[in-house]
This record gives sequence, C-alpha cells and structure tokens, in this order.
Amino acid sequence: MCYLLRYIGMVTISQLDVSSEIPLYRQLYDRIAESIHNGQLRNGERLPATRELAVQLGLNRTTVSAAYSLLEEDGLLKGHVGRGSFVNFSMPAADRISFASSRPAEDHFPLAEFQETCREVISAPEASAILQLGSPSGYGPLRQYLLDQARLSGEAAPDDDVLITNGCQQALDLLQRAFVSSGEGVVVEDPVYHGLKNVFIRGGARLFGVPMGENGLDLEQLGRVLIRERPKILLVTSNFQNPTGATLPLEARESVLRMAREFNVLLVENNIYGDLRYEGTPLPSIKQLDVSGGTVLLRSFSKIAFPGLRVGWVIAPRAVIARLAEAKQWCDLHTDQLSQAILLRFAVSGRLAAHASNVRTAGAARLRAVLAACEKHLPAGTQFTRPSGGMSLWVKLPDPLDASELLSRAEQEKVTYLPGRYFSVAQFDPGTLRLSFGGLPPSQIEAGLAALGKVFTNELTRVRKANRFEAAPAMV
Amino acid sequence: MCYLLRYIGMVTISQLDVSSEIPLYRQLYDRIAESIHNGQLRNGERLPATRELAVQLGLNRTTVSAAYSLLEEDGLLKGHVGRGSFVNFSMPAADRISFASSRPAEDHFPLAEFQETCREVISAPEASAILQLGSPSGYGPLRQYLLDQARLSGEAAPDDDVLITNGCQQALDLLQRAFVSSGEGVVVEDPVYHGLKNVFIRGGARLFGVPMGENGLDLEQLGRVLIRERPKILLVTSNFQNPTGATLPLEARESVLRMAREFNVLLVENNIYGDLRYEGTPLPSIKQLDVSGGTVLLRSFSKIAFPGLRVGWVIAPRAVIARLAEAKQWCDLHTDQLSQAILLRFAVSGRLAAHASNVRTAGAARLRAVLAACEKHLPAGTQFTRPSGGMSLWVKLPDPLDASELLSRAEQEKVTYLPGRYFSVAQFDPGTLRLSFGGLPPSQIEAGLAALGKVFTNELTRVRKANRFEAAPAMV
Repeated sequence: MCYLLRYIGMVTISQLDVSSEIPLYRQLYDRIAESIHNGQLRNGERLPATRELAVQLGLNRTTVSAAYSLLEEDGLLKGHVGRGSFVNFSMPAADRISFASSRPAEDHFPLAEFQETCREVISAPEASAILQLGSPSGYGPLRQYLLDQARLSGEAAPDDDVLITNGCQQALDLLQRAFVSSGEGVVVEDPVYHGLKNVFIRGGARLFGVPMGENGLDLEQLGRVLIRERPKILLVTSNFQNPTGATLPLEARESVLRMAREFNVLLVENNIYGDLRYEGTPLPSIKQLDVSGGTVLLRSFSKIAFPGLRVGWVIAPRAVIARLAEAKQWCDLHTDQLSQAILLRFAVSGRLAAHASNVRTAGAARLRAVLAACEKHLPAGTQFTRPSGGMSLWVKLPDPLDASELLSRAEQEKVTYLPGRYFSVAQFDPGTLRLSFGGLPPSQIEAGLAALGKVFTNELTRVRKANRFEAAPAMV
Repeated sequence: MCYLLRYIGMVTISQLDVSSEIPLYRQLYDRIAESIHNGQLRNGERLPATRELAVQLGLNRTTVSAAYSLLEEDGLLKGHVGRGSFVNFSMPAADRISFASSRPAEDHFPLAEFQETCREVISAPEASAILQLGSPSGYGPLRQYLLDQARLSGEAAPDDDVLITNGCQQALDLLQRAFVSSGEGVVVEDPVYHGLKNVFIRGGARLFGVPMGENGLDLEQLGRVLIRERPKILLVTSNFQNPTGATLPLEARESVLRMAREFNVLLVENNIYGDLRYEGTPLPSIKQLDVSGGTVLLRSFSKIAFPGLRVGWVIAPRAVIARLAEAKQWCDLHTDQLSQAILLRFAVSGRLAAHASNVRTAGAARLRAVLAACEKHLPAGTQFTRPSGGMSLWVKLPDPLDASELLSRAEQEKVTYLPGRYFSVAQFDPGTLRLSFGGLPPSQIEAGLAALGKVFTNELTRVRKANRFEAAPAMV
C-alpha cells in the first residue's frame, strides 16, 4: 500500500459531489490542494499513482490525471518520470505570514491565568468526580452556569435546556444526525465555512446557499428558497460570519425569525463569533429576539478562549436538546470533563471576561490594520468587506484575477490565504478569497498585505498588457 | 410542551426496531426503564401522556399504553388519575449498592499523581500549543508515543497508523460512519455492550449476533453468519467482554483472524479491557497475531485511568485510519488536547503503569469477592461466568426467574444491576443479568450479593410453591 494513501485517503467519494456543476477533476484538485495547504500532505511526499488513486476513489483515471495536471500547473506537485508525483510546497514557517487559519493568536493566550485555573480545578474537592464517567448532556455545574447566564441575558426561554458539545463542529454534526435525513434540505449562507458545509453534505442533505452581502444573507433569495425547497434547517450566522465577516442587521434578524416561523423550519443561529465585536454596539441575538422560543443557538469557548479545549454548547428547547443528547451519547458518550471544569472555573473566576476584553482590544487593532492595509496595498477595483469584529474578511479581486491561481505565487512571497472556492455552496467567483487576520499582529498584517498587493497588482498589469496586445491584430 | 419530553424525547424511533422480534411496546418499556435506572428520568417526574408520546414517536397509542402498564407493574411508574404517570424510583444513593455501571472505582483514582501530571503539563513549554487548534488525527506527541508502544508490542504493523478518538465509543461511531452504509451487515457478540449495539443500529446497519459462551463467541455460528450474510464488519472483544467477562482463547483468536480474511470482512478487535487481567497469563491480541495486517484495534485510557477524560485510540492500516480521520474531522475537528497531553505525560512518567498495577491488585480482590459471593448467595441452579479480569460477569438465574421483573424488588433492598435484555442482540434469556463489580469494594460486593441472593431465592421458593399448588389439581 502506498505510504501516502493515508493522506489521499482523506479524499473519499463522500466529499466529491457528482451532481455538482463543478467537475469532478476540479473537486479532486480542490481537495488535494487543500490537503497540501493545510499541511496534511507535506513537501516532498509522494502521491499515489493516478491509476491507484482512481481505483481507491472509484473514479475514472483521466479525472485523477486532470487533477494532477492542474496541481502541477499550480506548482503544487512535481512529476518525476518513473518515480511519481511529489508534493512541492512548504508549509508557512515562522517567517511566513498565514491569513489562512481562522483561529486566535497563540501569543495572546493567558497562560498564567490558565495555569492558575487548572490548579484550582484539580485541587478542588470535585476533582475525583470530574475524572469519573460523566453525562451525555455535559458537566452539571457548567450546564447550570451556562443556562443561568443565558437566562440572565434573555438567550434561554423558560423551556430551554443546554447541551455541551465538543466545540461548535460537533453541534453541527449532531443537528445533522438528529434532524436531517438524507435528501432533506438545509439552507446555509453562500459562501460559508467549509466545515459547516461538509458536515451536511456528508450527511446526505441537499444544501441550498443564500448569497451573502455586506449585510448578511439576501432575504429575498432566502424567501424564495424557503418557498421552493421547504428545508428542514435554516442555519444563520448572526455576527461576523466566516468567511465574509458580515453581521446581520437588526431588522434582518427579525425577518429571518419571522420567515423561519412561517415556513416551520428549524432556525439555527450560529453565534460563535459574537463575543469578538471590536466596534459598534452589540445587536440582540436572534435567540434573544425569539420570544416564542424554538431557535437553536450555538455557542463556543473556542474562539474567545482556547480552541485546543473542545467545549461548545447549544441552547434550545428541551425536546431539541433531548434529541441532540441522544445522538451525542452514541457519538462519544460525553464531552471531556476536565476541560469543561476548567472553562467553567475560567468563566466564574472572571478571568474569561478579562481575557475576552484583551482579545477585543487586540482584535480592534488587527481589524484596523487589515482594513488599512487592504486599502493601501490591494489593486484598485478590489472590493472587500468591512466587518466590525470576528476573524476574517472577504476580498473580491478585480476581474479577471483568480485567487486560486495566484495562491502559489503568493506563497512564493511567503504569504498564504484560502481562495473563495473552499467556501462556495452554489455560486462561485474565482476572484474571491478569505483573509483571516485574527491570529496575526498588525505588523505582519501590513507586511503580508503589502506582499499580496504586489502579487495581485503585477498579475493585473500583466493581464491587461496581454489583453492590449491580443486585441491589436483584430484592429489591423 | 411537557417538561418531561426532554427525557422521553430520548426515545426516538431510531432506537425502536420495527423488524425486531421484540415487540415495540417491550422495546419502549426497555428504553424508559433504562432511562429511569440510569437517572435520566428522576423520581417523581411526570411522563408525557400516552397520546402525546405516541404522536411524538409516531407509534400507536396502545403501544405506549402497554409499555406504561408494564412499567407500572414493575413499580417503576405510578399512575394518578387525571394527573398522569410519575416515575417511582430513586437512584441508588451512597447507601445503595450498584452493580449497574461498568466503570472504575473513584476511590482508586490516583489524585495526587494526576494533579502532579497536570502541573507538569501546564507549565511545560508546549502548553500554548496544546491550547491551540489541533489535528483531527490527534495530538502529535501522543500519537507518536502510542504508535511506538504498539510497534514495540507488535500491535502495529509497519503500514499501520494511529487515530486518537474521544474514547472507544467514538471509534465505534467513526467505524460505522466510514465503513457501514445503511443496510450493510455488522457481526457482533450476543450479548454485547448496548452502546456498541446502538451505534450500529442507529446508523442503519443490519446487526447479527453470534452467541457468547464462557470462551467467547461461538465459532461455528460465526462461520454460518459470515457465509450467509457477507457482513462488512466483524467486531470482537478479545478480553473480558462486556457484559459476559469472557476471553477468547488463543486458537479461537487465530480462527477469527482466518475467517475474517477468508470472508474479506473488516475485523475490529475491541480490547479496551485487556489491561485489566487479574489472573492467568495474557494472551496475544488478535492484532498481534495478525502478521498480514488489516485488523483494526480499539484501545482506551478510560477503563484503566480516568473515564472523565475522553481519550481512546485506534490502530489500523493507514488507509483505514485516513477514512476514520476524515469522519472525525466533520464530527468534532479533533479530540481535546489538554487531556491528550495529560494522559501522555501520565503514561510517559510511569504513573500509568503504577496505577494500572494498583487497579489490577484491587480488581483481583474484587473478582475473588464477587465469585465467592455468587457461589455463596445465589440460589442453587444459578450459572455465572468466571472471568479472569475486566469489570463484569454474566449471571443466568434458574428458570423461571426473570431478572427484569426482579429488579424493582432488588432495588427495594437497595441493590441494582442491569437485566440481560439491555445487551441482547437476537437471542434473549430473561433470566440473565450483568453484575459489574469493578467499581465496588469487596465488602459492598458481599453485602450486595447477599441481598440479591435473598431476593432471587425468595422468588424461586414462591414460584416453586405456586407451581406445586397449581400442579395439584391435575394429579387428582
């Protein structure tokens, strides 16, 4: 067996969508390129032979060959006659600047406070109980705390309950399992976080994307999808959506709520970025606006505290929580209790609030830096969103620039990002890309965008010049 | 909405098997009784009206009524005219003795060593990296350690890789997702741990049970099932199976391996109890015997260390691990890193080995106590297994005793256990029950079995007397 099947094995048929308008070779290309960019496939590693991979994936060999050719064109693969194809890409090292990952900055982790919190938890009388088998619903004291907090803030109705999950990703997975059978519809934003998209596609859902604008999803199109498709779930990110950074205005929140009720769709509000507001006044969440109950709210400690500790939570009507908890039990019995206890203590002690405040101060500086640098360095005609918080913004390069094609050139300049195609549901604009700025200090943001700006501007100049020359003969 | 739907909501159609020989009302009864016994439904809580629950579950109302009647007969529910049905069962308190839960004893947790390990981990230079987003495959240093150990012990072939999961339960779930489509066959032991059974049933698999004897599964019947059903997965517990405590002899391990290869079925060896051997010589695991590779091995820290920290692992060929890792990514991104780092340090420091040795010493005393107490207190004609390790043994009461019916009487005597029906796949003997002794000190084992023995003996005497009287008229 080829040593590298373990990586290429990551591409399975479940991820390739035969009904998609995107051709299979392009989907395969995307998946392998993603594995290269996120480091699952490392520089110098050998890919399986096209024939081998074709058999493994049940694809035509020409499909695999076409994907490999594209990867070679991009400079991500290097072919050696008789020896095979090798990855030709080094992960960003310390001297590289990555706008590719939507995660908090490690240098801002309050390590001393975390250590102090751990010490308190492990020397408390409850330590033994934490080490023992727990409940599928979560660690009791944490559940109680989160429910109390949610009641105080008006985010939990009297009939609501809470379920602890392994981060928000598991909440999405449990929703799919408990509420969406194969062939049922799920409405999401377009573009949307790929981990959200994939969990429903893998579960056999029909996914409908509603285009995103600067002000969140397009309500007219949402209405049309709801009428036409009668979906099971409507999933909306209220604040600082990943990847666009868009925040849904107050009236739109009320409209979404009304529409969800009218079409009897389970409304899921993803609000994992809500605590990362750097400017402006916080808006009430959809869950807070929902006086009649029924909305499912997803929250997480990952974005505001420590993503390595996998603790998120769901607030929803009891009957919904019960179905999710049942699914949770067969998934993994329960969430790790030590991390639950630590995050509870981190919150109760006031350290979480203090840390969140620091994160917001740093985030505000980063947001200012990224907006100023986009303005300064990106070529004229570039459009980009102007979020008030979160970790990412969305860039549309001037036509005919292709963010995927330009990525390898950016990486030669030691800067990386994720092209828009990773996030597309139905519509796809090759000029788009996501810039995640949350993990980078302002100096690196400025330096990284200066480099990107040069790559994009050079390409634009080159293309325009070429077009002028191409146009010439026809004028003779 | 009824307050209690959150519990009754735990019963969903996915858990009721219409094709089963067990009638639906009995399945519903089982599920509710289980919720009462494991504390999800608490004493005094109101159940939904039969009509309400019937609608919720899509069942006939008479089915729900029949289940409620049975629960009332058992004394688990109390009906009040016009007010509804209320749970009538208090969870075992400190003065109760529970043979119901297969988990380690809290009083044996090496708290000081655990605290010391935590302190070392959180003050190490890697602490920041642990708090950051991790890999779906697991925390790198832990994976490397487990793979190195497995190579040393011959449990990892050169082409094998390792995946960290949230305990063994998640490994089962990932196997279902990655390898078993709806309608495909999975062969398991009968009886078998209900969490294992349910994960595959929920995933739509056709489940085939192979009867268990004192020496593990019946190889002749296994052969017949493999020929007839051509299943996708064969799942075998090599040591101290839950619930029977049975260990597969060496020759049987070799036979299973041969049969799996012959019928091209993915062989999964569940060996989460293997470290809990209290007497006799350890046998090579199936994975160790498998020189040609291909066997999937499931391991966990939960049974030997701290079940509250959710860390298990899978060792399997790279291509298998890659498919599991892909499923893992959509499930929850990755396993909690703090617990992974702590368990790694706990192992590397030698503390795990020292703790395991203590656990085995204590386990040996408990095993002796439970076997002696069964011998002494259970009525003549009772059969029970004699495991050499693990946490449970399997009891078959003399006919016509019914372990489910007698449970409420045992609970009046402040002793509880799980009746055999929770573990049955196809065959079911109402006289069977599981005694989990791993979490109880010998004195409680003795006292608990004395009480159980009295309940069973009294009932046997009563039944036999009644039968004599009933038989009398015919003799006239």
